[in-house]
Amino acid sequence: MQKKSSEGLSVKKDENFSEWYTQVVEKAEITDIRYSVKGFVVIRPWGAMIIENMYSLYEKALQEKKHKPTFFPTLIPEKNFKKEAGHVKGFTPQVFWLEKIKSEDKLALRPTSETSMYQMYSLWIRSHRDLPLKLYQRANVFRYETKATRPLIRAREFYWIEAHDCFETQKQAEAQVQDDIKTTEEIMHQQFGIPFLPLKRPEWDKFAGAVYTIGSDALMPDGKIIQQPSTHFLGQNFSKTFDIKFKDKQGKEEYVWQTCYGPAISRILASVIATHGDDKGLIMPFCISPVQIIIIPIFSNDNKNKILKEAEKIKENIELIGLKTEINASEKRPGEKYYEWELKGVPFRLEIGEKEIKEKKLTLFTRDTGKKEKIEINKLSNLKKFGEDFDKRLKTKADNFMQDKIINCKTKQELKNALENKKIARINFCSIEKQGEKCAEHIEKEMNAEVRGVLANKQEKPTGNCIICGEKANEVVYIGKSY
Amino acid sequence: MQKKSSEGLSVKKDENFSEWYTQVVEKAEITDIRYSVKGFVVIRPWGAMIIENMYSLYEKALQEKKHKPTFFPTLIPEKNFKKEAGHVKGFTPQVFWLEKIKSEDKLALRPTSETSMYQMYSLWIRSHRDLPLKLYQRANVFRYETKATRPLIRAREFYWIEAHDCFETQKQAEAQVQDDIKTTEEIMHQQFGIPFLPLKRPEWDKFAGAVYTIGSDALMPDGKIIQQPSTHFLGQNFSKTFDIKFKDKQGKEEYVWQTCYGPAISRILASVIATHGDDKGLIMPFCISPVQIIIIPIFSNDNKNKILKEAEKIKENIELIGLKTEINASEKRPGEKYYEWELKGVPFRLEIGEKEIKEKKLTLFTRDTGKKEKIEINKLSNLKKFGEDFDKRLKTKADNFMQDKIINCKTKQELKNALENKKIARINFCSIEKQGEKCAEHIEKEMNAEVRGVLANKQEKPTGNCIICGEKANEVVYIGKSY
Repeated sequence: MQKKSSEGLSVKKDENFSEWYTQVVEKAEITDIRYSVKGFVVIRPWGAMIIENMYSLYEKALQEKKHKPTFFPTLIPEKNFKKEAGHVKGFTPQVFWLEKIKSEDKLALRPTSETSMYQMYSLWIRSHRDLPLKLYQRANVFRYETKATRPLIRAREFYWIEAHDCFETQKQAEAQVQDDIKTTEEIMHQQFGIPFLPLKRPEWDKFAGAVYTIGSDALMPDGKIIQQPSTHFLGQNFSKTFDIKFKDKQGKEEYVWQTCYGPAISRILASVIATHGDDKGLIMPFCISPVQIIIIPIFSNDNKNKILKEAEKIKENIELIGLKTEINASEKRPGEKYYEWELKGVPFRLEIGEKEIKEKKLTLFTRDTGKKEKIEINKLSNLKKFGEDFDKRLKTKADNFMQDKIINCKTKQELKNALENKKIARINFCSIEKQGEKCAEHIEKEMNAEVRGVLANKQEKPTGNCIICGEKANEVVYIGKSY
Repeated sequence: MQKKSSEGLSVKKDENFSEWYTQVVEKAEITDIRYSVKGFVVIRPWGAMIIENMYSLYEKALQEKKHKPTFFPTLIPEKNFKKEAGHVKGFTPQVFWLEKIKSEDKLALRPTSETSMYQMYSLWIRSHRDLPLKLYQRANVFRYETKATRPLIRAREFYWIEAHDCFETQKQAEAQVQDDIKTTEEIMHQQFGIPFLPLKRPEWDKFAGAVYTIGSDALMPDGKIIQQPSTHFLGQNFSKTFDIKFKDKQGKEEYVWQTCYGPAISRILASVIATHGDDKGLIMPFCISPVQIIIIPIFSNDNKNKILKEAEKIKENIELIGLKTEINASEKRPGEKYYEWELKGVPFRLEIGEKEIKEKKLTLFTRDTGKKEKIEINKLSNLKKFGEDFDKRLKTKADNFMQDKIINCKTKQELKNALENKKIARINFCSIEKQGEKCAEHIEKEMNAEVRGVLANKQEKPTGNCIICGEKANEVVYIGKSY
């Protein structure tokens, strides 16, 4: 395909992150924004293969935690959609509606699937023996965003997983919320290398229909927050409106307790790109790169066949240890090939030419460190370990970046300074219940920043008064600017 | 989950296939038709896991044949949709339209994606070096069906793969069409056990916008034909309307030659269910069953822990050889469990109780033959081979069924009889070009059957005159009743 990927990036990530991002998703052929519907982008093969790998790891984790896959229809009838009052209020402005067909119900494209799934849950659940019910679907969802869209970050169609669980007791449901945070930690942080703060959102910022919401706040290189998977404790709000009841062990009828969890795979990919990439292009975690090791044969017309044959053997050996590899055998110059695969973020490059064959040692280039070294042909199995180290380095670097960004602020002026310096501020705050909204509005108005919430998996005790209103602080909150 | 699967099927497949199918998809928990939008069903976990396995095998085959994955938007602007005249005529009655939003374009839910993908192809393709371009997407598509819908067979939303390829020459494109037929053969027939006739459709029955269409006609147990993957030679019809051009080696600008191929995974599952199932329920091919071997521990309160521990060991050993297995450890009676897993079509059941542990031999039940035999605990690796044999038996049985259904007919009366006996008739026929349509209409009116086309991968020579009009026969066609 054409798309002049060889042109490279014309800006530095540190100097203009926004433009860097726009260029890298295009030039590394992740997305194409030229699709003819506003807010909708095409995911190109390199992006699609990464997304498939991310889905695969995420779904495996959910299945190991006893979730089962399903597929629900994309269309939701208006009457379902309107059942839960908070939910409809929150989502209605964002809904794409279908033209009415004859006397059939008016239909919405799902912006999220509570109201499509829960009517079925009420048919499937009868007894405590049917619980817990833990289902998920891999799905594309639609939201009419009015803010400016950005590829993968904010789009009108995106690719996610939504898990919807039902339990006998509140305690079990709240334990699931904590387990969802752990899943985000295990996959998004430990595997994809994206650190996050699991923050319980203030009352005024929770999911439409939830009792409470925990968002995973990750950081972009420009200091802005991007919300990643959120998990919601729904209490019995939806089970009461959708009539999802079970008979408990004593034969008494009760409403189920519910949770839902929504990792948006395409949006997590935005964080992966933004967090790990550098001025040469993407740096893909080893665990999700569609090609983990690219083999570049260095040949002339005289020795092409011989070199390609050796490269083929190397490829087979690498595949035998279960790694994904490819030979780039085109007629382009090696330098041009190096350049393209670095742009695409492939973790390792193996160069093989006459000299390498004679010495029985290949040249190994590592994308994140830029280091070139020799690797013996009979020690290629080390690549597995190298790959693990690669991912650990990406993660550590991202962790350090995030840690440096969080600043304790004791006064309003410190808070202002921190936000101006693109930091996340940690402050004593009056309350994330309704009565704290005024202080949050003040921050939003004065500093164009948001109260994101309190840590959800760890209790942090405030040590003074709210630095906004001066009243007793009940919480330690995190504040930042967001996407 | 409740859904009284233990109730079993109340009809025999031979006696009332239609009712058998309705019951089996519900009771084996493949789909639930009680979703509140007409023509849309929910795919339940057992169905979703099978579909995932089918996708996985199909996508692997396409990738091995150099196709790459992509994701295109679900929404298509009206102006794209209307570009190719034949296409818009064929699909417009089936389109779901969105309510217009402000001044934005009117949008359709994709019924198929030519008109969303090809505008991008015209941006991506510049030179012969960009060809061939072979992309596919895993997608859900929407068609407003006015005929009665049936779960998986005909629905308003279905799950498919669509591959869209571009080539420099007509010859390459037509070779791709033949290769698509081979892919259907390798996956749908060789792996899923569904035989089919690859039939080049008559001129009046081709895909809207194609030069010609090859459908894969499979047979349902009631003798009706169901169309499975079709592949289309598009010629330059779309490349001319979407302006997809390339510079050839001489620098001359040419339009690309195109093909597309659409295996509908959810519909293929309908054939798998219908073809292999029996009066006890589903019979799932070993290669796609979410559980290949179900382990049923037989215990009392006294020895439960001991038996479960042994069962766990068996499970680990089976997983080590790469097979999918599960222990059903619930408190239900073994007989009830046997029943449920037979209904779900799991190929093998291993029973383990005191006696089995003592003898170091497990009881192995095989779903399709109903045979019970002993298998030594240290010979469980044989299960892999047993699984292959299992799939071969399913395939052979389906092949024989299909062969018996195809009847050569030399007169109109023979044709009538064959169709009344639910056979596929093979006859001499005047023409599948425009001039043959009259004879086809005659057959449709008199016998309520369709001329499905001529074999696409093998030349069959007619040996007389058209048995309808008496003119010279140019073709050997296949005729049947269809879904």
